[in-house]
Amino acid sequence: MNKSFIRFFSKVVNSEVKSFKFSDISVRLASPERLQPKPEVKALQFGKHFTDHMLKIEYHVRAGGWQAPIVCPMEYISLHPAAKVLHYAVELFEGMKAYRGKDGKIRIFRPELNMARMNLSASRSCLPQFDAEEMIKCLCRLISIDQEWVPHSEAASLYIRPTLVGTEPSLGVASSESALLYAILCPVGPYFGTSSEAEAVSLLADPNFIRAWPGGVGDRKMGSNYAPTIKIQEQAHKKGYQQVLWLYGEDNQITEAGTMNIFVVIKNTKGEKQLITAPLNGLILPGITRQSIIQLAKEWREFEVIERVITMPELLHLSKENRLIEVFGSGTACVVTPVKRIFYRDDALEIPTMEQQDPIFRRMLKTITGIQYGDIEHPWARPID
Amino acid sequence: MNKSFIRFFSKVVNSEVKSFKFSDISVRLASPERLQPKPEVKALQFGKHFTDHMLKIEYHVRAGGWQAPIVCPMEYISLHPAAKVLHYAVELFEGMKAYRGKDGKIRIFRPELNMARMNLSASRSCLPQFDAEEMIKCLCRLISIDQEWVPHSEAASLYIRPTLVGTEPSLGVASSESALLYAILCPVGPYFGTSSEAEAVSLLADPNFIRAWPGGVGDRKMGSNYAPTIKIQEQAHKKGYQQVLWLYGEDNQITEAGTMNIFVVIKNTKGEKQLITAPLNGLILPGITRQSIIQLAKEWREFEVIERVITMPELLHLSKENRLIEVFGSGTACVVTPVKRIFYRDDALEIPTMEQQDPIFRRMLKTITGIQYGDIEHPWARPID
Repeated sequence: MNKSFIRFFSKVVNSEVKSFKFSDISVRLASPERLQPKPEVKALQFGKHFTDHMLKIEYHVRAGGWQAPIVCPMEYISLHPAAKVLHYAVELFEGMKAYRGKDGKIRIFRPELNMARMNLSASRSCLPQFDAEEMIKCLCRLISIDQEWVPHSEAASLYIRPTLVGTEPSLGVASSESALLYAILCPVGPYFGTSSEAEAVSLLADPNFIRAWPGGVGDRKMGSNYAPTIKIQEQAHKKGYQQVLWLYGEDNQITEAGTMNIFVVIKNTKGEKQLITAPLNGLILPGITRQSIIQLAKEWREFEVIERVITMPELLHLSKENRLIEVFGSGTACVVTPVKRIFYRDDALEIPTMEQQDPIFRRMLKTITGIQYGDIEHPWARPID
Repeated sequence: MNKSFIRFFSKVVNSEVKSFKFSDISVRLASPERLQPKPEVKALQFGKHFTDHMLKIEYHVRAGGWQAPIVCPMEYISLHPAAKVLHYAVELFEGMKAYRGKDGKIRIFRPELNMARMNLSASRSCLPQFDAEEMIKCLCRLISIDQEWVPHSEAASLYIRPTLVGTEPSLGVASSESALLYAILCPVGPYFGTSSEAEAVSLLADPNFIRAWPGGVGDRKMGSNYAPTIKIQEQAHKKGYQQVLWLYGEDNQITEAGTMNIFVVIKNTKGEKQLITAPLNGLILPGITRQSIIQLAKEWREFEVIERVITMPELLHLSKENRLIEVFGSGTACVVTPVKRIFYRDDALEIPTMEQQDPIFRRMLKTITGIQYGDIEHPWARPID
């Protein structure tokens, strides 16, 4: 693991955290007549279909902290209208996936990193932390119960959404003395609604809108990072762009795209390939797919891998010199998604990502999905029991 | 009204908004045995006691938009676990108060400004807007039903919390096709738990933490502005400071304090008093109390009122020259609250706010509460029917 990532995650877990325990879990199954029909893989829309069960773990300071984990039928959550999550955005989440391989086994991908990041988000939100491995066991139990929902397809997967919200019923901007940690599951197809063969997306880069800033929480997966982006995202959609590419600073640094980290493949002045991505400087989310790409590329030893600030003017310059080779995004939902165009300062920058003979993005997509679906044996993929 | 405020609110209401109508309201009263005992004024804690009823108005694109307003017994809200408010902080709120005067009448203060601001927050959050006057009538009806909850005291009031949250049950960062607008009521005493005679507070100003930034949503009352402040606020508490004073930029501009706008009274080099507050440049919330203070002070014509950037180094300089006279905060919850100390760069700046003979903050507090409680006849106070 590279240093910045180790530094990042070593800040994480307070070993004194008194966690819930998987061994306390209770399961209440949905009655057979309540089980939902499973949609066809082709008909899957991201985040619109839910499985039959969910995981719930309550936290109450006055009841000694974490309560026993419960798997129960998927049901509405009942919140006091003054619950802090509804007023002050005391909320955070993670995104993970379960994959069904040709061998029939169901695997999850580096869940310990998601849970470490979730604990970081919890700490920043004054919400309670927990033991990552206990939570992973609870999630595996939930997935196991709803295992028939994991699509029988390598073009789809089961999206896992662990969520932690502050439920204390009192107005006043302060930490929440009660909380609900829960997880729901969604069978999903490709994030951008394209086919399994990755199709390139277009991004809108408008320097007038800023996602995150130094002294803020842009590197934590808190709900508050998302609401302000929705309107800008809608404007991008109307103009025909799938995502916003968030810039920062007077030099228009490329940060991330809200649901994806961004990678750029260039040729340096000696004609050597380099893979560049923004550093973990507080302005971007520390993506697990991002980290995996960096680690894999370093293992390949075929080109230099650099975490550094890269700006839009630099991209324009590289493009002019025909040294801009690929741009792609990475994320749990979108996996690895090529970028073909960035609209910036009234001009479209065309990127020859899809015109490469053997592009890095495609090899990376193949390797990562190969690991996730078990075609490639790798310690990052963890079979559920 | 001053120009920046007019400009601010003229952006507001789309007259094509298809609003709910007060005339469609239905009322379901709590049964007598469910009515809660009313706490004594002395025992009131901010935002912890709730009245017997609430207002609820649902919005569903697929059902034609806004549904009929409902007043019902205070009850838990039932949300799908994928509701957008729980993941992406699609939520916003307002803070208002109802005051019981010596004449027994209950008044609300400039509610049209709160509703205009709420519509601005809704627009920025891709949530539905509504007709301000229809909503005010619904709120008045709710207050009227729970009128015995409006404290019989000029040291207390009934806090009104209109809230709008995105309820669409789908993961994916996008606008919400369904929403819930609701309002709850809390009898409250002084915000900082001090007596009705205002006591001075201390603020922590740490340049390492930034509340809002250009290109963000710091001027909208969205939940996403609050979650990131809680941890910093707790650190301030531990150090003995009531609030954080949020700075911005390399020059450490004074912006606001999260629940208060900030005013500074200085003497200029000619020895003339000036009242200074940060401008509406996107970094601060456009407070209704802030605006009222500016308007009143301008009517008084006794000193200059200036909306401009003022920095911490400038404050230190003014203090050294004995030209820093008062600092105070303003907000619906805290009304007008004097500031006695700001901790900044390892040093405490002592402010002689409480040592003035006839300080502006006290006269302002008296005037505004006088209007709110009906001791001073003024068009800003609107009696409820």
